[in-house]
Amino acid sequence: MKPDPDLAAVAHVISAVRTRQPLVHCLTATVSMGIVADGLLAAGARPMMTETLAEAPTVTTVADALAVNLGTLSTDAMDGIPATVAVAVRDGRPWVLDPTAIGLAPVRTPLARQLLDSRPVVVRGNASEVLALVREGAGGRGADSVASPDAAQEAAREVVRRTGGAVAVSGAADLVLDAGRSASVARGTALLSRVTGTGCLLGALTAACCAVEADPFRAALAATTWLTVAGEVAAGRAAGPGSFRMELLDALDAVGDAAGALTGTGEDR
Amino acid sequence: MKPDPDLAAVAHVISAVRTRQPLVHCLTATVSMGIVADGLLAAGARPMMTETLAEAPTVTTVADALAVNLGTLSTDAMDGIPATVAVAVRDGRPWVLDPTAIGLAPVRTPLARQLLDSRPVVVRGNASEVLALVREGAGGRGADSVASPDAAQEAAREVVRRTGGAVAVSGAADLVLDAGRSASVARGTALLSRVTGTGCLLGALTAACCAVEADPFRAALAATTWLTVAGEVAAGRAAGPGSFRMELLDALDAVGDAAGALTGTGEDR
Amino acid sequence: MKPDPDLAAVAHVISAVRTRQPLVHCLTATVSMGIVADGLLAAGARPMMTETLAEAPTVTTVADALAVNLGTLSTDAMDGIPATVAVAVRDGRPWVLDPTAIGLAPVRTPLARQLLDSRPVVVRGNASEVLALVREGAGGRGADSVASPDAAQEAAREVVRRTGGAVAVSGAADLVLDAGRSASVARGTALLSRVTGTGCLLGALTAACCAVEADPFRAALAATTWLTVAGEVAAGRAAGPGSFRMELLDALDAVGDAAGALTGTGEDR
Repeated sequence: MKPDPDLAAVAHVISAVRTRQPLVHCLTATVSMGIVADGLLAAGARPMMTETLAEAPTVTTVADALAVNLGTLSTDAMDGIPATVAVAVRDGRPWVLDPTAIGLAPVRTPLARQLLDSRPVVVRGNASEVLALVREGAGGRGADSVASPDAAQEAAREVVRRTGGAVAVSGAADLVLDAGRSASVARGTALLSRVTGTGCLLGALTAACCAVEADPFRAALAATTWLTVAGEVAAGRAAGPGSFRMELLDALDAVGDAAGALTGTGEDR
Repeated sequence: MKPDPDLAAVAHVISAVRTRQPLVHCLTATVSMGIVADGLLAAGARPMMTETLAEAPTVTTVADALAVNLGTLSTDAMDGIPATVAVAVRDGRPWVLDPTAIGLAPVRTPLARQLLDSRPVVVRGNASEVLALVREGAGGRGADSVASPDAAQEAAREVVRRTGGAVAVSGAADLVLDAGRSASVARGTALLSRVTGTGCLLGALTAACCAVEADPFRAALAATTWLTVAGEVAAGRAAGPGSFRMELLDALDAVGDAAGALTGTGEDR
Repeated sequence: MKPDPDLAAVAHVISAVRTRQPLVHCLTATVSMGIVADGLLAAGARPMMTETLAEAPTVTTVADALAVNLGTLSTDAMDGIPATVAVAVRDGRPWVLDPTAIGLAPVRTPLARQLLDSRPVVVRGNASEVLALVREGAGGRGADSVASPDAAQEAAREVVRRTGGAVAVSGAADLVLDAGRSASVARGTALLSRVTGTGCLLGALTAACCAVEADPFRAALAATTWLTVAGEVAAGRAAGPGSFRMELLDALDAVGDAAGALTGTGEDR
């Protein structure tokens, strides 16, 4: 049986991450630093986490990609993010924006919108977050989405028009799109939302894939598939959210060429 | 066999948390953010962790309860806590104070005492911490208690007189009391003190229970029972502190109506 | 069969940590706070994590040892570290320096060099970090080493001349040395580098051992052996990096007198 062409493309990106072990600089929510770092290591990439204005712009010069996540947003991160993104842009390094829990929060919401001008190669968020990037007054409740996938798809297209990159919208089915392509990944498990930071990890894993795959759409699709397939493998072995977290890290390390058919995944146009 | 009436009340609160999935805003120790967030998610609640003065008072307006823990106390948290508590008080939202490691520490100790004026519905701490809330010069050693349960009980009654709420004192047997009631929960396992942040998690879980149960005494008793029974289940499956941490999260998800008889638990008066 | 004499010395230190349960104040990378705290607890020690200038110098007075790690280096830690180290020095308390990811980073690199004047009893780092302590322009890439063990050994001897203490250099084989002794610990597993913060944990565990063993060389050798042997035990049980992290904590708790022969370990001179 011929392997699914998408699966082959995804497996190619996974393999490249493991071979090239990209160094991913993450400015991420304090609460999810642990799972983001361990998830990148499990995937074969290498994390870096300094977020201060005094050091982050300098150390980011050795990174292969940058992931910026606005969850919890410490004052160190508020200060460090714009200058660090500016260095990544100057150096032509791919960077990913994860506008976690924007909408109501008064600092991260305008910051996220302003960061679109620095053209992240991928924006990753849930439906509410993507909507809040382009609509005043929109936003979820905490880290959870309350927006419909359809409204988010329209907003995602608007983001794509501004950045020229790709957008990945998490949900029951994940949506990945850019200016000319669109794919739906109907994989994963509800347990992914029972562990803190799995969305942040997806953003960082997307940055790792962007470090080895120049096409942001393909990189985002690979990261989304990698994490959701690993989630399915982990769910089959877990007895609850605690063991699921551990199994997810093991599965990120194990998922690869034998990831299985990507049912429900494919470019729509 | 008729179920223990306490067990029925506890099971009712657990069920309500799972059904209503309260959003709990946590200003907590950096070191325990991970287990607090994962523990709340395992219990069926939803965590939110922003602590800056710039954002925490605003985002707390969408939360169902607030948990304030003074462990590690970053400068962000020092700045953000008083204003965030003020919003919770203004909006009539239940909030829980966990005065972690007060006594010697020069910022958190007066802060904890001052926060009593904002009348937390529950104060949760170990014997040394509860004692240090009302006695100059008292306090433990790091996060560990050196005070006797009896001295703590007297101090807890003084806290109750000031706040009008409930107090939960952790120890070999946990004590929960308010102005008119008192209960002892002789459950749990020594392994709970071999994992960082289980006390912080209990404070946050108490806030989750306060979001669905208007009686702070019953909410605190339910949270204490929930966590300690889950600890017993986890201890029976764990090979050491690492696997215990994972099993504890699985057990928080699983413990419920079938939690078993609450031996040693009951209202004393 | 007579037990290896080194093993007996290591087992003696492990036993002393479990009996005396030293309180170890850790100013450490935010990303690794969780594994450092849980690792110390698993080992039988007790962690303390406050890093602000406002509180850390005061609370450190009750600690038995201090561990300073420069990874991620928040502004709170930048401000708090020098004053906290000064108190430890004033009080004659052993302290350990872990110069994580120095070299390129503009704040931590001069800070680490300056902290050598406060004579840490042990400096623990990888080859690049130890080299960057004494050579301008040296340093690794993120948290990973790019220096050779031989270059690091020469640099380590220079550090020893400045501090009068011991140095532990992590690598495929770990090197521990002081002014008159040198040992190589060829234990461990590649999985230790697939989990974030295991190096930070080794620094903190070294501080715990220094609290119960006055000879820094023996303390560093014990901590290095303890962690790497636990890593081997965990690797034998793990299916991937997620389960390895859990098993490592269980093994830190279990490793002891029956740790097994320390092949490849021994004082060279």
